[in-house]
Amino acid sequence: MRESFQKLQEHLEKVSALGAALALFSWDSETLAPKKAAEYTSKAVGILSGEMFGALINDTTKECMARCEQEKDLDVEEKGLLRVLKRQFEELEKLPREEYEAYQTLLAKGPSVWYEAKEKKDFSLFAPVLKEIVEYNRRFAALRAEKGQKPYDVLLGDYEEGFTMEMLDPFFAELKKEIVPLLRHVEENPLPKAPLRHCSIEKQREFNRFLAEYVGFDFERGVLSETEHPFTDGLHSYDVRIATHYFEDNPESGIFSTIHESGHALYEQQVNPAYNLTLLGGGGGCGLHESQSRFFENVIGRSEAFWKPIYGKLQDTFPEAYGSLPLEGFLQEINRAQASLIRTEADELTYSLHILVRYELEKELMEGTVQVEELPRAWNEKYREYLGVVPQNDGEGVLQDIHWASGLFGYFPSYALGSAIASQLFACMKRQMPVEEYLEKGNLLPIREFLREHVHQWGKAKTTVEILRETTGEDFNAGYYVQYLKEKFGR
Amino acid sequence: MRESFQKLQEHLEKVSALGAALALFSWDSETLAPKKAAEYTSKAVGILSGEMFGALINDTTKECMARCEQEKDLDVEEKGLLRVLKRQFEELEKLPREEYEAYQTLLAKGPSVWYEAKEKKDFSLFAPVLKEIVEYNRRFAALRAEKGQKPYDVLLGDYEEGFTMEMLDPFFAELKKEIVPLLRHVEENPLPKAPLRHCSIEKQREFNRFLAEYVGFDFERGVLSETEHPFTDGLHSYDVRIATHYFEDNPESGIFSTIHESGHALYEQQVNPAYNLTLLGGGGGCGLHESQSRFFENVIGRSEAFWKPIYGKLQDTFPEAYGSLPLEGFLQEINRAQASLIRTEADELTYSLHILVRYELEKELMEGTVQVEELPRAWNEKYREYLGVVPQNDGEGVLQDIHWASGLFGYFPSYALGSAIASQLFACMKRQMPVEEYLEKGNLLPIREFLREHVHQWGKAKTTVEILRETTGEDFNAGYYVQYLKEKFGR
Repeated sequence: MRESFQKLQEHLEKVSALGAALALFSWDSETLAPKKAAEYTSKAVGILSGEMFGALINDTTKECMARCEQEKDLDVEEKGLLRVLKRQFEELEKLPREEYEAYQTLLAKGPSVWYEAKEKKDFSLFAPVLKEIVEYNRRFAALRAEKGQKPYDVLLGDYEEGFTMEMLDPFFAELKKEIVPLLRHVEENPLPKAPLRHCSIEKQREFNRFLAEYVGFDFERGVLSETEHPFTDGLHSYDVRIATHYFEDNPESGIFSTIHESGHALYEQQVNPAYNLTLLGGGGGCGLHESQSRFFENVIGRSEAFWKPIYGKLQDTFPEAYGSLPLEGFLQEINRAQASLIRTEADELTYSLHILVRYELEKELMEGTVQVEELPRAWNEKYREYLGVVPQNDGEGVLQDIHWASGLFGYFPSYALGSAIASQLFACMKRQMPVEEYLEKGNLLPIREFLREHVHQWGKAKTTVEILRETTGEDFNAGYYVQYLKEKFGR
Repeated sequence: MRESFQKLQEHLEKVSALGAALALFSWDSETLAPKKAAEYTSKAVGILSGEMFGALINDTTKECMARCEQEKDLDVEEKGLLRVLKRQFEELEKLPREEYEAYQTLLAKGPSVWYEAKEKKDFSLFAPVLKEIVEYNRRFAALRAEKGQKPYDVLLGDYEEGFTMEMLDPFFAELKKEIVPLLRHVEENPLPKAPLRHCSIEKQREFNRFLAEYVGFDFERGVLSETEHPFTDGLHSYDVRIATHYFEDNPESGIFSTIHESGHALYEQQVNPAYNLTLLGGGGGCGLHESQSRFFENVIGRSEAFWKPIYGKLQDTFPEAYGSLPLEGFLQEINRAQASLIRTEADELTYSLHILVRYELEKELMEGTVQVEELPRAWNEKYREYLGVVPQNDGEGVLQDIHWASGLFGYFPSYALGSAIASQLFACMKRQMPVEEYLEKGNLLPIREFLREHVHQWGKAKTTVEILRETTGEDFNAGYYVQYLKEKFGR
């Protein structure tokens, strides 16, 4: 990296250090911090966010950036750094710092208010905070929008560069068109209901630790912990943390949460360590990130080849629950499709319908055609329409996800994009190597290496569009996903 | 608080927010962070420490401070704020910021290097880092020393304002003079060796949670976690964290670690919440802080009155280990005195001799009369001389404590001071209330309230000297402690 860029990176070290601190606060508040801590911690988080704002948005950054822009023949890191910085700069420079700080203080409290509301299954406890969060998002998006740009497109772009409603509307329309008949087909041929499988939490912990390691998670550079709503957080590639969850009567929930999060975590751990504590560190776009988790969770994690070498270990760990269930029966269980209420527990087929509900509601919230108070009713209506099921209370309805409490508007579509990208990458991978054969031998290394080489190592240096093009030779193509679902659930 | 002071506090908000972040990093690195994280996290910690330095040491702080100094009739908070700030300011202003930042980066790695060396029982792995830490301390202390002030006195003052070698030398001399014959007396009348008491970690967790709550720890504003070397860390009074440890064959180690740390934590939780995220927040001097932990651990925590109402619960939780041991036998076990190698496991009588070893070695390290490489030999010699026991390896010798790895030189004497202050406060408390009667009834509230009123609520607003004077009517007086030990172990 040439001098001008080095100077820029040095100037931005503070931004990255504050980013690491805020990532730690965020991890901690969702896994360990005591109940009442947020009352004061949120203030500290607000102040530090303000500092981060100030460390990024200033004349020195502008000057350094200008000098870098004059350089020619940029390499991939230089190009990436400039692109990421410009995005972040443009995201923030139009916002008043005090408002941004107040918003971050609010967000640091959001999840604890949401937790309580969810526990009590009472949306009205969360509504006032959510209203404020929505208002901030609408206002910030409007301030940031280019001429003619719609506010919700601004937010969508934050999570996956270059993706807009213009592109997502037909994508979701196609999914709806294809999935609804498939779902009907599946529901007309129902499988017998699987029994509850009781497994001690202690044993689940042991097995899930094994699973994470099997997928490739490095425990010397990571932590596996527990929380209500599974997630992965990374301070840098040497400190990546998974929080999963365990239910005594539903070991499969923990298993697939852990595999899913291990996919995210593997991505973060395989980013080039030279990017640590720079703007290039951590995974790229959210859709691409989700493609890695969904690839491990669904594309390979629910396949026969994946389980063949390790199903015996599952049976040995939980002899009462799985001892008499043959692998075939297990595969049937983990691949059943059925309309349900909870997104994180949804099967592969119906999953995107859960996302569709959120995508449509977010659009309406941002356009102001739905008000926060109306959300529970609107939510339930859409569930009835798309999935044919209706929540009995807010806890299993509109309160089920933490995302809005953390200010994530525009994030949900990444989940559906991720599924589609995972299928596209898988098709490419299969053209280049005998994936199934490797899986059956319990050898995941070539798979991890493929992902490291084409996706992971680049951190934020390349865009999702670039990575897809360079890896698969084509642009984003939802066809692979539709094809994949049809093959799997059309039978 | 008048306007000038409010302005000062606002200007210092950033210092407090960064302080909270650094406290969280410190907690996290010792309880959860993955093994290799320090490699990059230490850099972030260094940068944030530098930011904190810059937020404190600047012209605006000076101007605000000058305005405040012109005010008259300061109240206790205003006086405290000015005093704490001046101490912190003077501590840092003479240090070059880059060196301070480099030192903090080093310290963020220190504990992980120490852990590995301790695990391998090999001091040579830790020596190079320790050498650097010692050099920084010597250099910083020399830079900060007033004319004629000895460097080690500078460091002692950091942990307990107003305490110097001139005062500690005779204090330790008296302890040595009194304790050595008492120890001889006890060792001439040995008690039968207590058997190993096997208790599952799971059950210990449950019982220690009960104990912390019994002492008064508020779990809505705190966390009880685990680590190698027990400690307490507070972000603010609404987020105070204890890390304790459990050994399957030694439940008493966990029990008294938990009671000890709960004493620290109760202090931090009872500080006036208005002080949160200001320079007045958190406990005062380290000696005073230790007096609170030792008060709960030893003065009341090893007494018959304390255990009377809860010994049955201990027996019920661990029927095999304690079911057939009467309370009297238990009390004998937890009050036995015997020279041993490990400070944290030492009994009340010999504890101060462990401190004496460290106090003398620190003095010599700071004066340069002992070199880091010579520490293991010097350590072992002093243990032979004062305690009559010799470590078989570095792990149970010079590597046993984390303190030096965290840069804490001048801290150890606080432990002995704490014991003495605990006795002095206890004598005063007994004059004012029937402590034993309350304990026997399982009513710790009046005790907590006494401590809250006289000690805890004041945070850093009052000095240890002021608190002792206002509470007990006299200055620090080691006589109470000597008297207490004589009564307890002279029999």
